[in-house]
Amino acid sequence: MTVTHPQGFSAAGLTVGLKPSGKPDLALVVNDGPADAVAAVYTSNRCKANPVLWSEQASADGRARAVVLNSGGANCYTGEFGFQTTHLTAERAAALLGVSPVDVLVCSTGLIGVGGQDFRDRIVEGLPGLVEAAGAEDAHGRSAAEAIMTTDTVAKTVALQRGGYRVGGMAKGAGMLAPGLATMLVVLTTDAAVDQEVLDRALRAATSVSFDRLDTDGCMSTNDTVILMSSGASGTSPSEAELTEAITQACLDLTGQLHVDAEGAHHDIAITTRGAATVADAVTVSRAVGRSNLFKAAIFGEDPNWGRVVAQVGVTDAEFEPTAIDVAINGVQVCTGSTPDADPEQVVFSRRVDVVIDLHAGEESATVWTSDLTHDYVEENSAYST
Amino acid sequence: MTVTHPQGFSAAGLTVGLKPSGKPDLALVVNDGPADAVAAVYTSNRCKANPVLWSEQASADGRARAVVLNSGGANCYTGEFGFQTTHLTAERAAALLGVSPVDVLVCSTGLIGVGGQDFRDRIVEGLPGLVEAAGAEDAHGRSAAEAIMTTDTVAKTVALQRGGYRVGGMAKGAGMLAPGLATMLVVLTTDAAVDQEVLDRALRAATSVSFDRLDTDGCMSTNDTVILMSSGASGTSPSEAELTEAITQACLDLTGQLHVDAEGAHHDIAITTRGAATVADAVTVSRAVGRSNLFKAAIFGEDPNWGRVVAQVGVTDAEFEPTAIDVAINGVQVCTGSTPDADPEQVVFSRRVDVVIDLHAGEESATVWTSDLTHDYVEENSAYST
Repeated sequence: MTVTHPQGFSAAGLTVGLKPSGKPDLALVVNDGPADAVAAVYTSNRCKANPVLWSEQASADGRARAVVLNSGGANCYTGEFGFQTTHLTAERAAALLGVSPVDVLVCSTGLIGVGGQDFRDRIVEGLPGLVEAAGAEDAHGRSAAEAIMTTDTVAKTVALQRGGYRVGGMAKGAGMLAPGLATMLVVLTTDAAVDQEVLDRALRAATSVSFDRLDTDGCMSTNDTVILMSSGASGTSPSEAELTEAITQACLDLTGQLHVDAEGAHHDIAITTRGAATVADAVTVSRAVGRSNLFKAAIFGEDPNWGRVVAQVGVTDAEFEPTAIDVAINGVQVCTGSTPDADPEQVVFSRRVDVVIDLHAGEESATVWTSDLTHDYVEENSAYST
Repeated sequence: MTVTHPQGFSAAGLTVGLKPSGKPDLALVVNDGPADAVAAVYTSNRCKANPVLWSEQASADGRARAVVLNSGGANCYTGEFGFQTTHLTAERAAALLGVSPVDVLVCSTGLIGVGGQDFRDRIVEGLPGLVEAAGAEDAHGRSAAEAIMTTDTVAKTVALQRGGYRVGGMAKGAGMLAPGLATMLVVLTTDAAVDQEVLDRALRAATSVSFDRLDTDGCMSTNDTVILMSSGASGTSPSEAELTEAITQACLDLTGQLHVDAEGAHHDIAITTRGAATVADAVTVSRAVGRSNLFKAAIFGEDPNWGRVVAQVGVTDAEFEPTAIDVAINGVQVCTGSTPDADPEQVVFSRRVDVVIDLHAGEESATVWTSDLTHDYVEENSAYST
């Protein structure tokens, strides 16, 4: 159950030869209407990939009919030729679908710097077969989800049923996951009948508490894109609050799938900061801890090294008293009032690790998800392009 | 040749049982005068260790006669008891040396949370022997440098001769090296006869272009301290510019020694950003690249993955055009105008890796030094406290 779960969507996935492995690498999601509203969130990295530059413009009017996605090449830092490749991809897909080129968004993922003549030829030549293969069955949606995988070990999909309408989605991303999104491509679909402005606000609210709080390695990608399309085919119009809840639920579900499939991770870490003066403070503190290589290496070694937690709290500008910080790891209160408390030996480790920091500076809280720093992470990222 | 190289200084190093290994762990540097000027720079981490809290106050008047340093415990997050231990250390050392307690600075390094009764007893009981052992020979200075080592594989020392005066120094630090200093303790000495204000400005100028630009793992310590003491014993009064040059030279020398001994490093990386609008922009860009785990893992794998460099440039707020970035790795221009240039296969790797980024946005430049992300780093930091 994925992007084709809601009514009014078809999808496809195909192998066109972008990946040396011969695995599927080109995907399509089509909104067959009747509505064509779209909302999208893109990387805040200032060095953006060509498909991001294109899609930002193409989605600016809040309308889109289709998304073409490829793995096997990021088409980033490939110059004017690379941008023309994206443009050509949208034009050819639009002609095949009988829509306008500016209603076709494009997403790419893979190595930066890959996007030359071969890359262009294989995508353009693959498009007719891709459009031909599109359908509304679960298998079609599943094919699309598989075609956008890179170092992902499993395809990530979501499907929700709400009163009278549905939400579906797919995601890819296993490394370079950091705020302002990740090397993450996400396509969400819904058949709810809502205004584009509502769709846009619901998506931004949802991503700010889900994908934006996943920070597996502190590295922000150049290609991050989250797209939400509405077909309106259900005829049901939920309230903005209802839609926001459903989209948030779908985003959190996919965030969780991305988290547990992070490159080389042995532990899935949730860092919750509570007692913060503001939500922003809570996110800042959780993220600072989640980005500490020393903390992440300690968790890999199942060492409940709370000193490395407090040291990271200290580099932030959040509101707190340096002598009043509590830290619990997997429920064991190892630090109270910035001094040792329970014996760290009591901490029991499993795949999931919960760190709770209390700043005693207010009532707000937030969780950031990260991964431990492992030999597998080093291995996977030192050998990626070779 | 180390802290005892200039006239008017004595030093000692001793084993008092703080380290399970039985290696030397207590050190002393005494300024025998005639002058007693001191300048110091401390961690900007808001969660400061007890010796930092003490020494900040004790050095505020610009006067100090001695520094007591220990390895085998950071005395950080050890509460009121820990602060009293630092206070007691200064008092006892002062009584033995016949000076005022507020003229004794204290530095500690080791595990956060270590600083209990045993820790206190061993230091206090060790002080008479330490003072007894102090002397002005090279061997004395060398002993002090060895007693502050933690995961360092070699003692770091420096000695300079200038016209009529000398500079000496010692440093420790192998991990948690990041701006605002590092898990780094540095004691510098000089027999130049200069005003305290000059000493202070010279030290700040020197550290801002040396220790502050070493960023091996992005983690800022709670205990960082750099102390510069002047005995005035040479009777020579260099100009401020001359002194600043000499102190900067000593700091750069020690920074280089810290860099090549960074925990688990296989490659010593220098990231130079040039063509920047401001020095601050150049430092920001170089540091952002130096903190990218993906970039650091790629260098470990000797993969000249320039895409990971440009992607990190993009997360900064420096002034640049996203389409005008050049990257060279070990002299090979792998990226020009944000597009692929020379074949990355041409890059030859050795222990030292030079990355040069040109922003084409101005005339300023700066270098940040970092290390690659290796299996050894993960291993060393996952097993540190166990």
